[in-house]
Amino acid sequence: MNVLILGGDGYLGWPLAMHLAARGDDVTVVDNSMRRQLMERHATKSLFQVPSLEAQCRIFASLTGRSIRHVAGDLREWSTWQQAVALSKPDAIVHFAELPSAPFSMLDRESGMLTLTNNLTVTGNLIHAVHELAPQAHIIKLGTMGEYGTPNIDIEEGWIEIEHKGRRDTFLYPRQAGSNYHTTKIMDTDYLWFYVRAWKLAVTDLMQGPVYGIFTEQTRLDDRLLPQFAYDEIFGTVINRFVVQAVLGMPLTVYGKGGQTRGYLNIVDTLQCVTLAIDNPARHGEMRIFNQFVETFSVNELADRVVDAARSLGMEASIQTLLNPRIEKEEHYYNPAHRGLRELGLHPHHLSRTVLTEMIEAVAKVKDNIRRETIVPQVKWA
Amino acid sequence: MNVLILGGDGYLGWPLAMHLAARGDDVTVVDNSMRRQLMERHATKSLFQVPSLEAQCRIFASLTGRSIRHVAGDLREWSTWQQAVALSKPDAIVHFAELPSAPFSMLDRESGMLTLTNNLTVTGNLIHAVHELAPQAHIIKLGTMGEYGTPNIDIEEGWIEIEHKGRRDTFLYPRQAGSNYHTTKIMDTDYLWFYVRAWKLAVTDLMQGPVYGIFTEQTRLDDRLLPQFAYDEIFGTVINRFVVQAVLGMPLTVYGKGGQTRGYLNIVDTLQCVTLAIDNPARHGEMRIFNQFVETFSVNELADRVVDAARSLGMEASIQTLLNPRIEKEEHYYNPAHRGLRELGLHPHHLSRTVLTEMIEAVAKVKDNIRRETIVPQVKWA
Repeated sequence: MNVLILGGDGYLGWPLAMHLAARGDDVTVVDNSMRRQLMERHATKSLFQVPSLEAQCRIFASLTGRSIRHVAGDLREWSTWQQAVALSKPDAIVHFAELPSAPFSMLDRESGMLTLTNNLTVTGNLIHAVHELAPQAHIIKLGTMGEYGTPNIDIEEGWIEIEHKGRRDTFLYPRQAGSNYHTTKIMDTDYLWFYVRAWKLAVTDLMQGPVYGIFTEQTRLDDRLLPQFAYDEIFGTVINRFVVQAVLGMPLTVYGKGGQTRGYLNIVDTLQCVTLAIDNPARHGEMRIFNQFVETFSVNELADRVVDAARSLGMEASIQTLLNPRIEKEEHYYNPAHRGLRELGLHPHHLSRTVLTEMIEAVAKVKDNIRRETIVPQVKWA
Repeated sequence: MNVLILGGDGYLGWPLAMHLAARGDDVTVVDNSMRRQLMERHATKSLFQVPSLEAQCRIFASLTGRSIRHVAGDLREWSTWQQAVALSKPDAIVHFAELPSAPFSMLDRESGMLTLTNNLTVTGNLIHAVHELAPQAHIIKLGTMGEYGTPNIDIEEGWIEIEHKGRRDTFLYPRQAGSNYHTTKIMDTDYLWFYVRAWKLAVTDLMQGPVYGIFTEQTRLDDRLLPQFAYDEIFGTVINRFVVQAVLGMPLTVYGKGGQTRGYLNIVDTLQCVTLAIDNPARHGEMRIFNQFVETFSVNELADRVVDAARSLGMEASIQTLLNPRIEKEEHYYNPAHRGLRELGLHPHHLSRTVLTEMIEAVAKVKDNIRRETIVPQVKWA
């Protein structure tokens, strides 16, 4: 299978590239290093100070004998697509090439507009690239569970049948997100759905929950193969941030009441899910949507679990409530479906104490890299 | 009332500017002439060869004593916003500054991406401009009935309450459009709805149907004040195009079965509706959505009415069916609500034979300007 990974330098893109290359796929990664540069500009370097993507590809090849093709380029430019598609001849294109941070998207006008224009331009170019250059390719787009927000009815997998005044029709499940970034993902979904109908694209849209974890079969091979791992207020996701706070002996900071509930998954399950989508492609003219998470937790439940794991290692750990910098419901109904990927064969990994203690121990080894001042939220929604 | 009109050079923007200036509003128009330039590049000049927007403002002032402030600038650039908002100090901002053509958006990659990036960048900048520079301003955004598509249930005004598995919530009415352009308008709606919640913007989103007509109280003053009027396959809307075909003695071209049904309105009702929205602003934190049309017709019904009007003037007129270049349902259920603007006081103008004969006579006077070769559809959806 020839797989083109857009955004191959990211927290998920790089481990996926190694996972697919290890099983024998022909893998091409494209990245313009925007995420690394933005993390550095905002003083929030990755926890693990890993080599450049180009160097990581070389190290991975020397350790495993498997090569990953690397294209350094900006997917807002058409010439990057011409080069990448010609080299990859993709059967599947995995689209991670978006700015994925809610706080970054709310930071200021420049960051907000960059999130909007980068994400939509890359998705628009992807659609034209497949149509013009790789019409058989299966598009696997990373969406987010955040597109749905926190509605007062059950969240289905992408679609809903509505009965209204005695008539029925099926629609994209209505979406309303809680940040600029999450809204750009709704816009991606709208845009792809039009072109699925017009041009018979084959699309799998993965509504992913927040991911946690560090270790995959390949990131364990060598510390230089670790992913970009963010823990700061801007790019960090909540479990990873809590682990870092526990290592620092700093209270775990819960925003508001902490009843905010989401669906989470381990990074190894992200790799499983995307691989299952690649191996079981959508049909042409089909927009297949899966809700990609394994279990739901409130923020309070997550904080309790991280505190429990830290204490089991003999560490001090406590929880502190902060005024919520975001505009979101802090207590709400949340019952999202997630059947599709299990039906394809997903074997879920759960958030056990062992998983958390392994993360805590790995982070403790690089404790000196942590910049404590980047953790407490500065970016406010309003 | 200080009103800033984005896209003041367009078919609707310019007549609205004159209408508001005539009643004493302080009106500022901004435009980068993109629409004029694109029409000329695609060999589809406006039927009425009107002066530049700057010259039209001068002519209008000399005839009426009312001035309209003109800013020549590109609203993708922040500096244009700084200049326009500083000059206008707007109470209301009317957003027409988007590429509004479905066929143009499907023409090729360049046109498709320009429609996407222009429309979303201007809407994004609008949101930041109001937040930073004019936080009290009421945003009136022109959406389109095309956002809803042709669902098998009644179309409500923007919102729908969904009961699902015994629970209820209210959502944006689910949208699925029939072109790239119409999808960018869905994306506008998504984007504004997020910032209405986050930043308490005051937004009226007008889901407008196709507009027809030439004459308003002000465009009648002088031929040089007529609007940009398109009749070609790319920028023309159906009634205007049928009128031009009738004048040429060319068959009215119906795409496919002709059962495609939409809600239509006369240009004078567009002016009424936008003015009603300006005079009755949305609250801060409210996203108020109106379906802006007066009556629904199928394409076959429109063709019959134009044929009838042409024959009443002693002209030959006939109808020809073409293969549909678009992907759309040619027979479908269509029952959209449109109460809100009537409750605000809209007095609808209907598509009478008199309205059509007046249009036919006006177009006949400039028959020599018509470029027949631009009418038959070349742009295909797939």
